[in-house]
Amino acid sequence: MASRSRIARALARAEKTGISAISVRPAQASFSLVTSRVISTTTVRHFRTSAARYAQKFTTDSYPEIKRDARFSELTDDHVKYFKELLGSGAAVLDAFTNEAAVEDMEPFNCDWMKKYRGHCRLVLKPGSTEEVSKVLKYCNDNMLAVVPQGGNTGLVGGSVPVFDEIVINMSRMSQIRSFDDVSGVLTADAGAVLEVVDNYLAEKGYIFPLDLAAKGSCHIGGNVATNAGGLRLLRYGSLHGNVLGIEAVLPDGTVVDDLFKLRKNNTGYDIKQLFIGAEGTIGIITGISIHCPQRSQAVNVAFFGLESYEKVQQAFREAKGQLSEILSAFELMDDSSQVLVKKITKNKFPLENQYPFYCLIETSGSNAEHDTEKLEAFLEDVMGKEIVSDGVVAQDETQTKSLWGWREGISESSGAFGGVYKYDVSIPLKSLYQLVEDVKVKIQEAGLMGETDEFPVVDVVGYGHMGDSNLHLNVCVRRYDKAVEKILEPYVFEWIKEHEGSISAEHGLGLAKKKFIGYSRSDNMIGLMKQIKNLYDPNGIMNPYKYI
Amino acid sequence: MASRSRIARALARAEKTGISAISVRPAQASFSLVTSRVISTTTVRHFRTSAARYAQKFTTDSYPEIKRDARFSELTDDHVKYFKELLGSGAAVLDAFTNEAAVEDMEPFNCDWMKKYRGHCRLVLKPGSTEEVSKVLKYCNDNMLAVVPQGGNTGLVGGSVPVFDEIVINMSRMSQIRSFDDVSGVLTADAGAVLEVVDNYLAEKGYIFPLDLAAKGSCHIGGNVATNAGGLRLLRYGSLHGNVLGIEAVLPDGTVVDDLFKLRKNNTGYDIKQLFIGAEGTIGIITGISIHCPQRSQAVNVAFFGLESYEKVQQAFREAKGQLSEILSAFELMDDSSQVLVKKITKNKFPLENQYPFYCLIETSGSNAEHDTEKLEAFLEDVMGKEIVSDGVVAQDETQTKSLWGWREGISESSGAFGGVYKYDVSIPLKSLYQLVEDVKVKIQEAGLMGETDEFPVVDVVGYGHMGDSNLHLNVCVRRYDKAVEKILEPYVFEWIKEHEGSISAEHGLGLAKKKFIGYSRSDNMIGLMKQIKNLYDPNGIMNPYKYI
Repeated sequence: MASRSRIARALARAEKTGISAISVRPAQASFSLVTSRVISTTTVRHFRTSAARYAQKFTTDSYPEIKRDARFSELTDDHVKYFKELLGSGAAVLDAFTNEAAVEDMEPFNCDWMKKYRGHCRLVLKPGSTEEVSKVLKYCNDNMLAVVPQGGNTGLVGGSVPVFDEIVINMSRMSQIRSFDDVSGVLTADAGAVLEVVDNYLAEKGYIFPLDLAAKGSCHIGGNVATNAGGLRLLRYGSLHGNVLGIEAVLPDGTVVDDLFKLRKNNTGYDIKQLFIGAEGTIGIITGISIHCPQRSQAVNVAFFGLESYEKVQQAFREAKGQLSEILSAFELMDDSSQVLVKKITKNKFPLENQYPFYCLIETSGSNAEHDTEKLEAFLEDVMGKEIVSDGVVAQDETQTKSLWGWREGISESSGAFGGVYKYDVSIPLKSLYQLVEDVKVKIQEAGLMGETDEFPVVDVVGYGHMGDSNLHLNVCVRRYDKAVEKILEPYVFEWIKEHEGSISAEHGLGLAKKKFIGYSRSDNMIGLMKQIKNLYDPNGIMNPYKYI
Repeated sequence: MASRSRIARALARAEKTGISAISVRPAQASFSLVTSRVISTTTVRHFRTSAARYAQKFTTDSYPEIKRDARFSELTDDHVKYFKELLGSGAAVLDAFTNEAAVEDMEPFNCDWMKKYRGHCRLVLKPGSTEEVSKVLKYCNDNMLAVVPQGGNTGLVGGSVPVFDEIVINMSRMSQIRSFDDVSGVLTADAGAVLEVVDNYLAEKGYIFPLDLAAKGSCHIGGNVATNAGGLRLLRYGSLHGNVLGIEAVLPDGTVVDDLFKLRKNNTGYDIKQLFIGAEGTIGIITGISIHCPQRSQAVNVAFFGLESYEKVQQAFREAKGQLSEILSAFELMDDSSQVLVKKITKNKFPLENQYPFYCLIETSGSNAEHDTEKLEAFLEDVMGKEIVSDGVVAQDETQTKSLWGWREGISESSGAFGGVYKYDVSIPLKSLYQLVEDVKVKIQEAGLMGETDEFPVVDVVGYGHMGDSNLHLNVCVRRYDKAVEKILEPYVFEWIKEHEGSISAEHGLGLAKKKFIGYSRSDNMIGLMKQIKNLYDPNGIMNPYKYI
């Protein structure tokens, strides 16, 4: 009875606030607060304005210990001439080497969107075909010219921009969908196709790309594969290692890895394409992929809960797995601090009446709205009856779905709104997942670095993430970047992760940011084997140097 | 109305035959006709009886063109002494080298269960720990002793038995479950754990191993991973490349690949473990795995249909994907010839009244029996109403579920009951998947090789398989193995597959059987890259020689 009346109360209140129970269609999910479109347009806007905006430091200033590798050649007029002849001198070659006036045009390719990394590149190449990529790479390899493969440039670890004068090979001109089989759901497309464009195309056919993330309006599917992006629905659709069926890639020596297989089973030899998934452009450039896409669910429900403890969050997750099982498509965790931030920045009305230490967002996706609603309601009744969940609301339409997702998706942007943010993207066994946030907060408080006024560098320490994948995002929100804070955080966070058998990079990759910390997640044996692979495919080291391992 | 009355008729008849509609629990699935237990016990029985049963040819006689690699050392007393000291001379070392009387004991390790391949091995080692595997391999590598890693020895391509005098490294003594996390569903276990044992363990916890296949009573999970086994439910749970989270393996030089990660997301460097998935023991020996296991479904339904054409089979598949979506766990295809064979051999009563050119078996697995039954009934009504499906029955209890699966699972054994069978396990795009069976049948008929009497070598050509994975099993059932039949089949089948952009080995792997045909499924570039990998990890070539690539 208690649970029923609590649900009734929640629903009644929900009606007042306009958030209540019923299923909705998911298709055109583009959340109001932090869509990737916002990211991409703001990025472009920044880049097109005056150079003064680039008060942003060069990576070489932030990391003075990184020295240019003397093995690499410096660019010459002859090199530029070769590329212009090969690709045509129009949109395919941006040249600030022989044309000083174009220096500013380089910035969108030299800078990451977080404004943390900035390179000195003077030449951007945009090949239009796999053959052109092959010729470009072979030339670079023969001439010891270092390169940075670049997709949508939405990475978070500085992997997609140059450090010194590496040539950027930008894949945006290879953006075609090559084929789609609407019986098997297998899509083949160029690496430079934008995730959202591909997903919209699939939506029309009743399918969904088996990956979704905030940067979808800008990021390329080739970049997603190269960084083994995880995103929001890994819990449901699994990782790219399982879904990618084929890859076309080019090795530094120009060899084309032509493994664009389109069926789900193929046991004919080593699955070499797997090495390119998550290689972050360090052994070759992905030019095309084939991928198995699931049916798009006809019914999507989103619920948002308040919970009294992390213990209860774990119980709720266990129940959701058991009861929602095959329709569970997201189980997201947010702590109270994260929601306070979003409230402060967005001024939106919070969906729950009271404040709780933890919140969860649950999404179900299924083929039958009625069944899914019934399952979700039975689940809600159960977890409220058992007092696992203290309060909750269910979205009633697409607007409400977006609004609820906004509280989860808004954390990233809100975290950075005070000046800066130290971000950690880590995997931790569920039982101790949130402990890291608490431990870090205590350490920062003990050091006297956190407070409400300007003298304290740290605004707050917040934790959120993909509970369903044991993936925590730890954000230390700051008014300014500060060495004292950094000293508290590193290597402490990485040591903590190692001790708890987690991963120092769950989904964002290594890039430049985590290159030197890989030892916290990998043994010497494994690092040795990785270096062997790097050396096998890229003996000259021209592919995305100074990064990864 | 038409559809309703047809369903009603089907259900009424089903009641008479004892097969009707309702959901059942899946858990202890062990099909009556071809369980792996049958396979394993018969195998063992064969092996323990007199050597006369081994009229079976040696592989060296069947493949006289394969010559022993002169780089490999011959076994000496000193080698045997080393291994006995290392592993103990009890159950861990089977030695027919210094003890001639033990020759017959070697047979279970020298012969595959299909009785197609037989090696000349005189020494079987059964290491009990990863450290022992490491010492064994290092010694073999240092002394140029060739080895064959062996799991449950249930392979179909001769990959798990020696050709000449390679030492067998059998993993059966490493069979422990190391850990299980019942919140995340992540299991860690020794490579030599038997699939069915592991799955039974998981069943008790409410989980399921994300792979199921007929040989589960014998096969090892390490062998499953080493051969990238596909099996019955890939459609639902995806491939091992997505589900395996970590691997512990030993390289020929004794290096331990210690990558036994237990969380779903880890983007810290090249995913080297992927190379071991499907490497068939050619670059190292897998000693442990960690794997993500899904929740076990509470409700399982099985339906069996007759259809008038392959066109209708495709329509039924499309509808099943759309309507059963997240609960669809198997969509199996069987042609009429395959069912005629099973009828003939098992004498069981066929579940449908009439004969049809094609049959499909559909399985659903979900968390709510009522919802699943409702979805399945709506689906049945729809496909019968649209006259896609001509007739069908739904299992009413576990016995009936097993019985219906028996018609699918019984094909493999029934195909071989006339003397022998040429088996092809291939991937083909769905639209032309069944065409291969028809084309092969025509060619054999035109050559006058197929008929009802003993003078004809071929009994019938049958097609069946995992429709949901575009995976066809083509069986040419023969009274005796015959060069004339072989000349029709090869390279014709492989050329056909190449032309249709399929794979010559969907799930069984390459082993010895398909080593020389890899060029039909892989480009020269890819084969070159694979040889490079082989050479990188196993420069002496001691790992499972004469096979794979």
